[in-house]
Parts: sequence; C-alpha cells; structure tokens
Amino acid sequence: MRAAVFLGPRRIEVADRPDPRVTAPTDAVVRVALGCVCGSDLWYYRAESPHAVGPIGHEFVGVVEQVGAEVRSIAEGDFVIAPFKFSDGTCAHCRAGWTSNCVAGAPFGTDGIDGGQGEAVRVPLADGTLVRVPGSGHSDETMRSLLTLSDVMATGHHAAVSAGVKPGSVVAVVGDGAVGLCAVIAARRLRAARIIALSRHTPRQALARSFGATDIVAGRGDEAAAAVLELTDGIGVDAAIECVGTAESFATAFAVARPGSTVGFVGVPHSVEVPIDTMFGRNIGLRGGSAPVRRYIPELLDDVLAGRIHPDRVFDFETDLDGIGDAYAAMDERRAIKSLIRMGKKEKRP
Amino acid sequence: MRAAVFLGPRRIEVADRPDPRVTAPTDAVVRVALGCVCGSDLWYYRAESPHAVGPIGHEFVGVVEQVGAEVRSIAEGDFVIAPFKFSDGTCAHCRAGWTSNCVAGAPFGTDGIDGGQGEAVRVPLADGTLVRVPGSGHSDETMRSLLTLSDVMATGHHAAVSAGVKPGSVVAVVGDGAVGLCAVIAARRLRAARIIALSRHTPRQALARSFGATDIVAGRGDEAAAAVLELTDGIGVDAAIECVGTAESFATAFAVARPGSTVGFVGVPHSVEVPIDTMFGRNIGLRGGSAPVRRYIPELLDDVLAGRIHPDRVFDFETDLDGIGDAYAAMDERRAIKSLIRMGKKEKRP
Repeated sequence: MRAAVFLGPRRIEVADRPDPRVTAPTDAVVRVALGCVCGSDLWYYRAESPHAVGPIGHEFVGVVEQVGAEVRSIAEGDFVIAPFKFSDGTCAHCRAGWTSNCVAGAPFGTDGIDGGQGEAVRVPLADGTLVRVPGSGHSDETMRSLLTLSDVMATGHHAAVSAGVKPGSVVAVVGDGAVGLCAVIAARRLRAARIIALSRHTPRQALARSFGATDIVAGRGDEAAAAVLELTDGIGVDAAIECVGTAESFATAFAVARPGSTVGFVGVPHSVEVPIDTMFGRNIGLRGGSAPVRRYIPELLDDVLAGRIHPDRVFDFETDLDGIGDAYAAMDERRAIKSLIRMGKKEKRP
Repeated sequence: MRAAVFLGPRRIEVADRPDPRVTAPTDAVVRVALGCVCGSDLWYYRAESPHAVGPIGHEFVGVVEQVGAEVRSIAEGDFVIAPFKFSDGTCAHCRAGWTSNCVAGAPFGTDGIDGGQGEAVRVPLADGTLVRVPGSGHSDETMRSLLTLSDVMATGHHAAVSAGVKPGSVVAVVGDGAVGLCAVIAARRLRAARIIALSRHTPRQALARSFGATDIVAGRGDEAAAAVLELTDGIGVDAAIECVGTAESFATAFAVARPGSTVGFVGVPHSVEVPIDTMFGRNIGLRGGSAPVRRYIPELLDDVLAGRIHPDRVFDFETDLDGIGDAYAAMDERRAIKSLIRMGKKEKRP
C-alpha cells in the first residue's frame, strides 16, 4: 500500500509500505476513506517535538476489510471511526472511561504503527477501538464530520467537558484553530448560554459564529483578557477553554477564569508554567489532556448523524494522498485551518 | 482588650489593643470563646512568608456582643462560628458559593483587622460572615469541634470536595497535619470506600484510623507513592488529597493519582511546580485553594451537632491567651498537631 511517512522536519513523502494484515486475533484491517492532518502533527513537522521516521497521521475513517478471529463488534464491510489511539476497552482505565490512558494502547502513526495518512491501517484491539457507523449512504458532508470524531471534534468536546461547561455557562474559548472551533461547537452542544471566542482572523470568526459563538474578542494576550473581563462585568467566565498549549494562551485562560471555575486544556502544553498561586488564591481548577475519544464518539456520532452539529466545516483544504506534503504546508503556513486527505482517488499500485 | 500580636518571626506576644466596637452598620462584635493556631500561621512565624506587625489568628468561635443597625441574621448573645475570612454574601462570587473570593472580603488577623487570637473581634459584614450555632449547653467537645469549622475542618472538606471524592472512591491523603487529618474525616463523610493516609507518626496514624483511614502508608516521597500504587493494584487512587503544599507532597499526590482523577490541594503552595505534562498525559485534574468556609459551615455544623464527626480531636495542646507563644512553639516543634487557645480564663484587664 501507499502511505505518508515522516522522513524529517518538513519532509513528508508518500512511500510504499507493507499491506496491513491481521496479525493478532483481535486485529482488524481498515481501508481508509478519509484522513486528515492534526495541529499536533505540526509539532514534529516543525521540529518542535521528536517523531520517528515512518508512518504518520492518527485520524481516519474507513471500511473494515478484514477482522481477526476474536473480533466481535466489528465485521468486514462496516464503516468505522478510529479514535487517534487504540485501546483494549477492558483495562481499569478504559472501564473508567479513560480510553486514551489504556494500559495496552498507543496512538496511530507512531512507533511503526500504521498511520491514518495512508491507504490502509492495521488496527490492534479492534473491539475496544473502532466504532461502527450505523446506516449507509451518508452524504460527503456527514462523512467529513464523522472524520472529525477521530480526534478534533472529540478533543474540542473534551476541552469543554474538562472546563465544566454546563447549561447556562458563560464560556471563553482561547484558540481559533480547528480544536478551538470544535470547542465552540461542544460548548454550544452542552448548552452554554454565552460563548466568547478569541480570534483575530475574520474567516475563523465567521466560522466560530456559525458554530454558536455569541461574542468575538479579536485581541490577544492581556488585551484579550481585559476585553473578556469587560464583557463579563469584571467577573470572568464560568469555564475557560484552552486550545493552543502555549504560555500565552494558558495565561489568557487563567486571566479570564472566574473564582471557582476551571480551565479546560487540550493543547499539548509547550513551555507552559501553571500559575499555582493564582489557582490557589482564586480557586481555579485545571483539567484536560489527551482526550478519551473512544468514550465520546457514540454521543457525538448521534449528533452528527442527526445533523445537529457540523464539525466538517473546519476542513477548508482538501487533497489526495499525493498532496500530503501540501496538506501539511497549508496548515503550517496558516493557509488552512485543517487539511483533509481523500484516499483512493489515484490508485498507483503496480 | 488583650490580643496576640505578631512582632516578628518567632515573636508572638499579648498586647493591649483597642476594644472592638461597631463602626459600620453591618458590623458585629464577637467576644471570642475559643481560638486556635493554624498551620499557615507557622509560615510567618518561621519567616517563610511576610506578615504585618499586628493582630493575628483567623479561627474563632464566640458570643455576639453587639451588632450594627443593619445586621439581620445575628443578634446579641448568639453563639457564632466565624470563617477565616469575612464576606458580604451578596457579590457574584459569594452568590456562586466562592465566599473566600468575596470582592469585599479579607482574612481576619491581617492588615490591622482583628485576629481570632484575642479576646474580641470586630466582624465586618456580619450577615454574610457569621453562622449562628443553634441550641445551647453544648459540651466542651462539641464547642471545640465547632471551632474547627472556622478553617481546618472546612479546609479538609474543601480538599476532599476539590479532589472529587464520591461514594465508593479510593482516596489517598498526603499530609498528616491537622488539615490532612480533617481531610480523612471529610473523605469518610463523603463515603469514600478506602482512605489511604500517608503518615510516619504513630499518634497521627492512630488518629487517622479513628477518623476513618482504612490503610496507613508510613513512607514518604517515591517510597510512599510506590506503596500506594501497590495497594491499588498499580492503578492509583480516584482522588488524591494534598494537604501540605510542598514540592514533594505535590509530586507524591500526582504520582498516586490514577488517570482521570483529580489532585485536590489546600496547602498554600510553596515552591511547587505543577507537572503539566503528567496532567496532560494522564488526564489528571488539579483543583483547590483557599476554602469557601462560609459555604461549608452549615452542612458540617449539622454533623458536628449530631455527633457524626469529631474534628475536635485534632487539638492536642491547649493553653490560654497568655500561653500563645507556646501554642505556636508547640506546633513549630511538632510537639502539637494543633493548639487551642481558650479565652477568658485569666482576665488581666486593669
């Protein structure tokens, strides 16, 4: 098969890789229909975090091609969503709902595990990992939304859940990347009364509004924090959602969080110092991390299929596997919010 | 009146101070019956944090002597509990339950506000601050327990609530000081199934057991964390309660916290670095701070009056106002878990 591989910073290429096959009775092989590039992929692309040479990508949906003898919940021909990590579904952490902390789990596209930016993927622990999509004949729009449940929409949801968004909450979302925009969807879905999106980019502001943002703050840093406080009569927000992972974005989130609230964070933290004295003095909680996507998919799936949420709109760039380099470059250069990879258009097998 | 004053590190003396009187229509004057020394008082006693020269102490119970014209909920002769901070009860933060973050509030015993380690206290914003104790003729044991609601028991409760202790939870309590011991009471009261107390001191271990600890881990640091993990089959605890505030105690709390759990903290953090990468990778939350004591007093009061909890047992040293210096020294030298000051025994007025 053909799959994207990481060769070094800014060196993403398509290579021939062994065709995935079932090697354990709990495996499944999935033919990828749609994949995409994650904001976190840019860290190794930009040499800001290490990544092994080899397959990449951890977001995909596709059709089950083969299952191992012990796989029960998934069958050949099923259309499935894969969370960005596989998980056994049976360990203590999975049973408690923390599937991203599965003792047997690992992310796709790392350490030689097939990535989602390729034609096919061997999925270990298929029963604990894949979620079957009911029905058939879904529109392309729906399919693209289903792809977001693999990571970005589920991660935005995790940010909102971690921040404790409840019906009636006043919320601020720091970060207008794909995750931040999905966090707006999530906050709206959790029935927040007011959603203040921090964004300096007109198209993203419009998208945030279409997702349910009630207010836009166009500044950044201290200026943005002051604007949010002014919008909230000096009180601050009930839930501050941090979707970037930088020192500045964390500082902004804490600055706007009212006493007793929680900062929910899902951006991989880079050089972040947690203001523990502020947390103590103002009773502000901090919670978040690597989203337990597998747990969240079923509830979000219902909303996608019913047309209640439209996270597909975060994709504003599309290419095929041969365009993978440009898919990364477009996000790196901020020409794209999020790049979608449509597989199977140009079959180049011998 | 006579009251303890801070003159400098390790220099606590009794001085004559102006008799408190109602200066605002929302004030009350309380004649102190019992006061005590807080673990946080030791920070300035030991020159580890600054404190103005002047009155000290923020935990007291006593009898209302005088009320201002606008005070409605409290009357002369009432026996009352004072939270360690006064609060108006009407600002946005108070209405949301975060009375320790009241916009008009401040702690007793700071910046010239009367302290609880003295014969009487002017209490600003009496309606939003004081809680009347129903009934009369309470035993001395009950009175001492009521005193703990002023801070230490309510703070232990805040630690347990912040850590998310629920019925059936497996809990670890890091710190065997008075707050840690009260956190054991609180965890038990919230119906934790298993409470692992970290303590290396035999009398405190016994007290922890009497409060509901099911397991004692006598080690410290990495050794203690390993023991807690072994007790929990390598999974870790559902709620980690941090009641010290040092880098080591935070590290221990995070080391034993299972994925998805929360570290609840109430020890004033000193030189603590929050392990944000651990929080992200294992989805561990962090929440706590200055306890909203005023909110918690009513529910805890019911349990004290019904004899369901016995936080008075944390007092293992008692003196009168003239013994205040020794009350501090006993805690500083770890001769005492917590020192109680009984007022009014030796009237030395002219």
